[in-house]
Amino acid sequence: MDNFTFYNPTRVIFGKGAISNLPGYLPSEQTILMLYGGGSIKKNFVYTAVQAALSGFRVVEFGGISSNPDYETCSQVIELVLREKIGFILAVGGGSVIDASKLIAAAAQNPQVDAWDIVTKKAPFNGALPVGVVLTLAATGSEMNNISVISRLSTQEKFAFSSDALFPRFAILDPHTTDSLPVNQIRNGLVDAFIHVGEQYMTFPNHNPLVDRQAEAIFNTLIEVASDALLIPANYNARAAYMWCATQALNGHLRCGAVQDWATHRIGHELTALYGLAHAETLAPIWISLLRYKMQDKLEKLVQYGQRVWNLQGGNQQELAEQAIAKTELFFNRIGMPTHLKDYNINVEEAAREIEHRFTERAVVWGERQDVTPKRSAEIVRNAV
Amino acid sequence: MDNFTFYNPTRVIFGKGAISNLPGYLPSEQTILMLYGGGSIKKNFVYTAVQAALSGFRVVEFGGISSNPDYETCSQVIELVLREKIGFILAVGGGSVIDASKLIAAAAQNPQVDAWDIVTKKAPFNGALPVGVVLTLAATGSEMNNISVISRLSTQEKFAFSSDALFPRFAILDPHTTDSLPVNQIRNGLVDAFIHVGEQYMTFPNHNPLVDRQAEAIFNTLIEVASDALLIPANYNARAAYMWCATQALNGHLRCGAVQDWATHRIGHELTALYGLAHAETLAPIWISLLRYKMQDKLEKLVQYGQRVWNLQGGNQQELAEQAIAKTELFFNRIGMPTHLKDYNINVEEAAREIEHRFTERAVVWGERQDVTPKRSAEIVRNAV
Repeated sequence: MDNFTFYNPTRVIFGKGAISNLPGYLPSEQTILMLYGGGSIKKNFVYTAVQAALSGFRVVEFGGISSNPDYETCSQVIELVLREKIGFILAVGGGSVIDASKLIAAAAQNPQVDAWDIVTKKAPFNGALPVGVVLTLAATGSEMNNISVISRLSTQEKFAFSSDALFPRFAILDPHTTDSLPVNQIRNGLVDAFIHVGEQYMTFPNHNPLVDRQAEAIFNTLIEVASDALLIPANYNARAAYMWCATQALNGHLRCGAVQDWATHRIGHELTALYGLAHAETLAPIWISLLRYKMQDKLEKLVQYGQRVWNLQGGNQQELAEQAIAKTELFFNRIGMPTHLKDYNINVEEAAREIEHRFTERAVVWGERQDVTPKRSAEIVRNAV
Repeated sequence: MDNFTFYNPTRVIFGKGAISNLPGYLPSEQTILMLYGGGSIKKNFVYTAVQAALSGFRVVEFGGISSNPDYETCSQVIELVLREKIGFILAVGGGSVIDASKLIAAAAQNPQVDAWDIVTKKAPFNGALPVGVVLTLAATGSEMNNISVISRLSTQEKFAFSSDALFPRFAILDPHTTDSLPVNQIRNGLVDAFIHVGEQYMTFPNHNPLVDRQAEAIFNTLIEVASDALLIPANYNARAAYMWCATQALNGHLRCGAVQDWATHRIGHELTALYGLAHAETLAPIWISLLRYKMQDKLEKLVQYGQRVWNLQGGNQQELAEQAIAKTELFFNRIGMPTHLKDYNINVEEAAREIEHRFTERAVVWGERQDVTPKRSAEIVRNAV
C-alpha cells in the first residue's frame, strides 16, 4: 500500500428535490454566474427549478458550453466574469459545464495568466472563484473532484489540469435531472465511470485490499444497475445508484494508496481532440485494446477482477484474464457501446500515427510502469480498430 | 436510496513516515496544545517524532487523557487552553484523545457554555478551535469525522455529540504507530470498526447497492487482514489496510442514503459508563445478541451479508441468517474478543435493569425502526449474558 494524501471538501446534497436546497449554499452578497450547456436544461425541469431557487440573487446567465468544453468559449466567459464582477459560478450541467466553470473560476481569479497556460500547466495560478454544481449528467465525477479537462479547438488539443482550489464548494445531485437524457448519454456515463475505476484498479497488486474492494464495489454496482438505469428513466433507484457510482469513481478514494494507469485517458483525449468522439466512445475501444495489449503486466489484477466482478471460476490465470476482458467488452456492447474504432468514421492508421507523433513531440510515456511509449500507444490504437 | 448530504473536509496524510509532514499543516503563529494519553507514545517512536516535527513551534503539552475520556479531565484542559491562549490542538493518540480534543476545542471557543451542555446538546455552540490529529490506534474513526463521545465520571454517563466544526483539519495516519500496541487494543479496534460498519449496514434493504457493497468491502477486508494485523506488527500492509478500514468505517460514506441502526452503540455506551468496559468489549456481545433478537427484521440484510461476506450458500433465509450471525461471533472469538457479558465481572441482570431505567427516564427508543424500547434494550442485554 503506497503512501497517499486524501482531501475532498466538496459538500454533496443528494436526492429527489435536492435543487430546492440551493439557496442555502449560495452567497447573497455576490453576483452569481449561472453557466450551462446547449439548453437541454430548458427542456426538462432543471432550468425552472434552478431559476426558482435563484430568486432574489443577482444572477448573470451564460448558456452555450459545448461537450468537450473549449478554451475559446471559456475565454469569452472569463471576460464576462471580469466585466460583471462575478463572485460565484454555478455550473448547471454535466462534466463539460463543470470543467469549463473550473477553468473560468481559476482564470478569472488570476487575470494576469492566460487561461491556456493554466490548462497546460505552463503558468502557476493562485486560487479560483468559488464554484457550485447542479449536476445533470452522471459521468465524469467532476462535480466532486479538483480536475478539469479542456480542449483547444484551434490546435485540436485536449488536456487535464487540477488544483485543490477547483473542488466545487457543493454539488447538488438529483437523479431525476437525468430522466430526460438520451440513452447514449447514459451509456456514455456508465462506461466513463466504469473506466475511471478501471484506470485506478487494473494495474498490478500492491497490497491495498480495501481500495481494491471499493473499486470492485463500483464495478459490480454499475453492472447490476446498468440495464435499468439505461432503459427505465423512471427507475429512480437505478439512476441514483449509477449517479453515486459515477461520483465515487473519481472523487479521490480509489487513488488512495493505489497504483494507477490512465494511459487509456491520455490516448482517448487525443482521439476526442482529433475527431470529436465523445469521451466514453474513445475510452471503450482503447481500454479493451490496452487490456489485451498489456494482459501479462496486468494479469493478477485481471484475474482478481474476473473472479470478484464476473464470478469467473476455474481455468488458468491466462484464461481467466482473457475471459475477464471478453466479459467487459460484452458488457459494453450490451449497453450499446461500440468497442472498435472502425465503428466511427475515422482513419485509424492516421490516428495512430498522429498520436505517436504527438506523444513523441511531447516526450511522454504512460501507464503504471511508464512503459507505454508513443510507439506502443500507436499500437494500442491500431489494435482497437 | 434515501436523500442525504455528505461533507468531510479532513485532509488525510497516510503512510510510513507521515509524521514528518506535520510542520506543513500547523499554524506557525499560534500556540499549539499537544494533547495525548497515558504516555504510551513515549514508549515508541511517536512522541520523539512529533516533538521533532514541532521544533520551532510554540507548544504546550498535556498528557493524561484516559480511555473513555471524561468531562472532568477535559474541563481542566479547557482552563489550560484559555489560560495559555492556545490556537490549535494537536491530538496525538487514538479515539479517546481525539474525542477529548474535539470537546476541548468546542468548549474553549465557546467559554460561555458549560462543556457538559455541549456533550448533552443542551446548549448550542458556535465553532471550535482547529484540531489536527496524529493517529496511534485505528478504531473509532474519530480522526476523520465530526463526532466525539465523552463520559462523565460523577454521573456514570456517556454521550456522543457532533458538529461540522469538529472535523479535524488533518489526520496523519502512519500504520507503524500501532506496532507497539498490545494485542487486545488491536482486537478492540478491529471489532469496533467492524461493528461501525454493521450499525450502518445491518438494517433493511433500501435500494442502495453501492453503499451496501462499500460496507461489504470493509467487512471483507477486516476479515481478510485481521489475523495478520493482530499478530504480526511487522506486517505493515495488514496494519495499513486495517487502519484505513477503521477510518473509512465511520467517515460518513456508509451513511450515504442508508438506513442506520446504532442501538448497539447506545446500549454499549451505558455498559462502559457503568462498568468501565472498553467500547468494543461492550459492542461485541450486544451486537451479536441484538442480531439474534432482531433477526426477522434484519433478515434480508443478514442473508445478503452471509452470502457476500461469509460466502454462505444454499439453505433457506432463516438458516443463512443464523449462520451469518454464527460466523460473525466465531470471527470475533477467534481474534480473542468475548461475545458474552458473563466473561466480564458484571451483574448482567443489574445492568439490564439500570439500562432499562435510564432509557425510560430519558424517554428514548433506538434502532432503524425505532422499536428498540427500553424494555427490549434490557432484553438484549440479558440475552448477551
